Amino acid sequence: MLAQAQTALRRARHVVPRTLSLLSAQVPASSQYHHRRPRPSAPWILGASVAGLALGSAFCEQTPETEETEDHAAPVAAGEVRLDLPTFSFEEVQKHTGANRSGTWVVYRHGVYDITKFIASHPGGTKILLAAGNSIEPFWQLYAAHNHADVHKILEKLRVGNLRDEDVEMLEKLRKERYGDGPYSKDPTRHPALKVNSSMPFNAEPPPELLMQSFITPNDLFFVRNHLPVPDVDVENFTLKISGLGIAKDKQVEFTLDDLKRKFKHHTVTTTIQCAGNRRAEMSGVKQVNGLSWDTTALSTANWTGVLLSDVLASVGVTDEDSRDGQCDCEVGENGGVCDDCNAVIQHVQFEGLDADTEGKTYGASIPVATALDPRKDVVLAFEMNGETIPRDHGYPLRVIVPGTVGARNVKFLHRIVLSSEESPSFWQQRDYKGFPPNVDYTRDDFWKFAGDSIQELPVQSAITEPKNGSVHFVDDATDSSIVTVKGYAWSGGGRNIIRVDISVDGGKTWTPAELHESGKRQKYNRAWAWTPWELDVEVPPGTKKLDILCKAVDASYNVQPDTIAPIWNMRGVLNNAWHRVHVTMEESEEEEDEDESSEDD
Amino acid sequence: MLAQAQTALRRARHVVPRTLSLLSAQVPASSQYHHRRPRPSAPWILGASVAGLALGSAFCEQTPETEETEDHAAPVAAGEVRLDLPTFSFEEVQKHTGANRSGTWVVYRHGVYDITKFIASHPGGTKILLAAGNSIEPFWQLYAAHNHADVHKILEKLRVGNLRDEDVEMLEKLRKERYGDGPYSKDPTRHPALKVNSSMPFNAEPPPELLMQSFITPNDLFFVRNHLPVPDVDVENFTLKISGLGIAKDKQVEFTLDDLKRKFKHHTVTTTIQCAGNRRAEMSGVKQVNGLSWDTTALSTANWTGVLLSDVLASVGVTDEDSRDGQCDCEVGENGGVCDDCNAVIQHVQFEGLDADTEGKTYGASIPVATALDPRKDVVLAFEMNGETIPRDHGYPLRVIVPGTVGARNVKFLHRIVLSSEESPSFWQQRDYKGFPPNVDYTRDDFWKFAGDSIQELPVQSAITEPKNGSVHFVDDATDSSIVTVKGYAWSGGGRNIIRVDISVDGGKTWTPAELHESGKRQKYNRAWAWTPWELDVEVPPGTKKLDILCKAVDASYNVQPDTIAPIWNMRGVLNNAWHRVHVTMEESEEEEDEDESSEDD
Repeated sequence: MLAQAQTALRRARHVVPRTLSLLSAQVPASSQYHHRRPRPSAPWILGASVAGLALGSAFCEQTPETEETEDHAAPVAAGEVRLDLPTFSFEEVQKHTGANRSGTWVVYRHGVYDITKFIASHPGGTKILLAAGNSIEPFWQLYAAHNHADVHKILEKLRVGNLRDEDVEMLEKLRKERYGDGPYSKDPTRHPALKVNSSMPFNAEPPPELLMQSFITPNDLFFVRNHLPVPDVDVENFTLKISGLGIAKDKQVEFTLDDLKRKFKHHTVTTTIQCAGNRRAEMSGVKQVNGLSWDTTALSTANWTGVLLSDVLASVGVTDEDSRDGQCDCEVGENGGVCDDCNAVIQHVQFEGLDADTEGKTYGASIPVATALDPRKDVVLAFEMNGETIPRDHGYPLRVIVPGTVGARNVKFLHRIVLSSEESPSFWQQRDYKGFPPNVDYTRDDFWKFAGDSIQELPVQSAITEPKNGSVHFVDDATDSSIVTVKGYAWSGGGRNIIRVDISVDGGKTWTPAELHESGKRQKYNRAWAWTPWELDVEVPPGTKKLDILCKAVDASYNVQPDTIAPIWNMRGVLNNAWHRVHVTMEESEEEEDEDESSEDD
Repeated sequence: MLAQAQTALRRARHVVPRTLSLLSAQVPASSQYHHRRPRPSAPWILGASVAGLALGSAFCEQTPETEETEDHAAPVAAGEVRLDLPTFSFEEVQKHTGANRSGTWVVYRHGVYDITKFIASHPGGTKILLAAGNSIEPFWQLYAAHNHADVHKILEKLRVGNLRDEDVEMLEKLRKERYGDGPYSKDPTRHPALKVNSSMPFNAEPPPELLMQSFITPNDLFFVRNHLPVPDVDVENFTLKISGLGIAKDKQVEFTLDDLKRKFKHHTVTTTIQCAGNRRAEMSGVKQVNGLSWDTTALSTANWTGVLLSDVLASVGVTDEDSRDGQCDCEVGENGGVCDDCNAVIQHVQFEGLDADTEGKTYGASIPVATALDPRKDVVLAFEMNGETIPRDHGYPLRVIVPGTVGARNVKFLHRIVLSSEESPSFWQQRDYKGFPPNVDYTRDDFWKFAGDSIQELPVQSAITEPKNGSVHFVDDATDSSIVTVKGYAWSGGGRNIIRVDISVDGGKTWTPAELHESGKRQKYNRAWAWTPWELDVEVPPGTKKLDILCKAVDASYNVQPDTIAPIWNMRGVLNNAWHRVHVTMEESEEEEDEDESSEDD
């Protein structure tokens, strides 16, 4: 496929002199500040030898402005022809890959851009280099969040020229041959109740009042966090492959679904899966962060049935003992470190999904081997979700469920496991889903050196799901006190049980513990993978006009939620577990009058 | 011994008419508000058949006033003769045990007290009933924190009469026969650098600047948290006994120290042990709490060598599998619950120490069976501390080390393990070392119903050890900026590694990550039992007069410390892990002038 594309490119090669030239005559003049022609509705394709530019959409929704770039005039919409700038051939663009001090150029529609100085401040890091000397459109097609005015504005500041019309057409023709209706055309249909945060890739959360109607979330309402198009898996030819360190010879390392189902004991685990970006919208209220604007319900709970990862790994000769006594026999290893020899020891279990970008680069993530091999951690290779075959949006045909661990490591469409001394090489492990200190943002050149450890287990969390923030609570009689029933969820990573949820209606001066539901409370010690729903009836004095409700939870390690967001603010907008606050307006109900009216109608 | 004491009491019996009488003539008159006679220097003894009144000293240091008790005039020091009240015989006092609506009386020196109404608000709960109809002094002797003016004041409000002089003498004689120089007379000598928070039982913490001089704390400087006198163990006859559920027949259930050392593989674990009350002094700054006033160093780190608890339990037939698949085969059990049948399944591993109160009641605690049987948790029965035989203050000859778990469960002088469906019946498991919501204090009758789960794993913690709070930092030249080196520790329970420590010198508006020491960083994932020391050089602008420094840590689960203390305040003063703050004054150094003076002397 790659060779085919390269051939097509070679055929389309038209050399333009390296000296700058004005735009060719066939391009009609256009006034500045107006679109010259309608933006093509279909996206373009990257035809040359670059690997996928795996920018998490969460990472890029609001790419910040960089102060480094020169403030070129940006007189046209992104990718439109600029009459004031020279025109280049695609061949010329391809020479600017950053090698030999050539500078780094990319193409977007008719635009040619020099991103050399922008690379350091690119939210997705140096992954942008994968588009060097080529078109960025195939990646923006995958990560539709780039199609945003703010991103376009930044791009146009980097503009250096125009791409020849014949090259624009050639790339468009290639795209059509290759993709037809686009990579998302085979995505499944979704439940209309879901609140969509991004449609390509599809990311959506359930309405809070529906979510908390049951301990187990119905499959249709389970929040969806996709990083790429949903793959159309040929289950007849599907296998799970295991490779890497420590695998004993002559062991079966490729399993059909049927093999997994027949050879290993089935195991059902009830877990709440939470996205690292849950409650990101609130964090943006303190200071803008990058990523999908998740509200409070980027989490859901299901029963997952499959086989224990530890059983499957034991069948290839990799057991708990290997990781427990860890590292190697050298002094460094005994002290918990990793020496050169130790590097040969399994430290991480990597997972690879079948969901891929334009170039076939798949989603991937890894977990520490200690988690993978500990049967107490209940890591399951699941083929059923709530008693049904896993729906396509949730990982059909196989998904690894890593209870108590951030959703990003619960890899969907799982088709390969790699045992390694290193974390997954994927963008989402290496450059995304990490914490940052509160004072680091994209305006710093060196922001990346402050990246924290890959997020694995999540901190203690709780949120109010009813009443909804900004809602109106109707009071029957304003002269009487009324009851507001407050509901929500609490959950903590690592299986840590929820032992208390405190509610305050006076800004945190006083607190009252909520009632915890039995379904959450009865979970095993340190294996409480699912949330604990809670509720509390709050008596509101007569005449109250506004009600501010706060909640905070305590887990079995007595970890608590921090008071405020600012000190945990991070540029990625992840890990928001500050106290949750909702504001409710109290109004006198006109229900009785309505009833009178309806009786009149009768 | 008990029978002997009862016989002595019977011999000394002198019946006094039940009608109230004035104090006998041999007691000289004394002015109100002045001590009538010197308080006996040696404490008394409880001679009759009551079990130990196990009040944690931490629980009782500042017993709050109760509003329920009638406000009797308290014209004398606690236990002095009150001429305005009747005199009772000891036999009469013994009738008031609360049975048959008799009311509940206790004796303190010459005083007789009706505690009937006080019981509900006693910080130590109903344990006070164990002294019913008897003397409370043997317990106050053990928990010397009761010897506090506030406690005495409360006691005198409950005064109903005087004890006959001959009975006071009888009890004093008994005490001398039994104890000689008192239960603490055989305690070891301690390092003079330790800051003593209570001498009987001995509780002390190292100076912060000494503590952080090394990753491993020298044995002499390791903080001491004793609940009772240090036992004088006859190691020749010492054994560890294992009893309770699930032990296979014909297994060895009693081990000498030598058995343990010979039969099981030795295992060394490096752990930081932290008291639940660490940083209690700060919590009292928000609102008074009960307990020893620990500063920031009720924690220390050592290498503990012994044998794995899981190995020892496996040798009696109790293995990991039993607890992992847990509970029982019924539906309730599978959902993580406990049915009646399940009660027969091991849920907790109880530990009993040899440190005992007057009546032989020993210190005890328990941990969940999942922790005890999981070899990844590194629970060790230790006989060595930093390569030496464990010192008496730290548990000689055997101590269970439960890494990542509150100090209180690391039972010293361990001589018995009980496998049970229940937590330890000890006061310290049932009534102490639990969290409470912030709005519950001893003024509520029903405070006990708000008690949280027994504290096991601790939350993420950090504190600044240098500069010390309230210290002066000398600046060479007030016109130049200067460097203040800030040092401290960070640690989290459950083995969760420390991944970041943030420092702020502007009240939390901006933060800078500190440098984490390698010794802390190189610990294994989720088995980081020891702390992570850190430091940061802070540049202070010229002219700065005051410096407020804050720190907060992040652990591998991205749990963070809460911003403030008030929302985590609890009446027991435990679990204070809010941001730590120190205030430093900056002054210009006079060093150069001093040097000039000394050169003049030369």
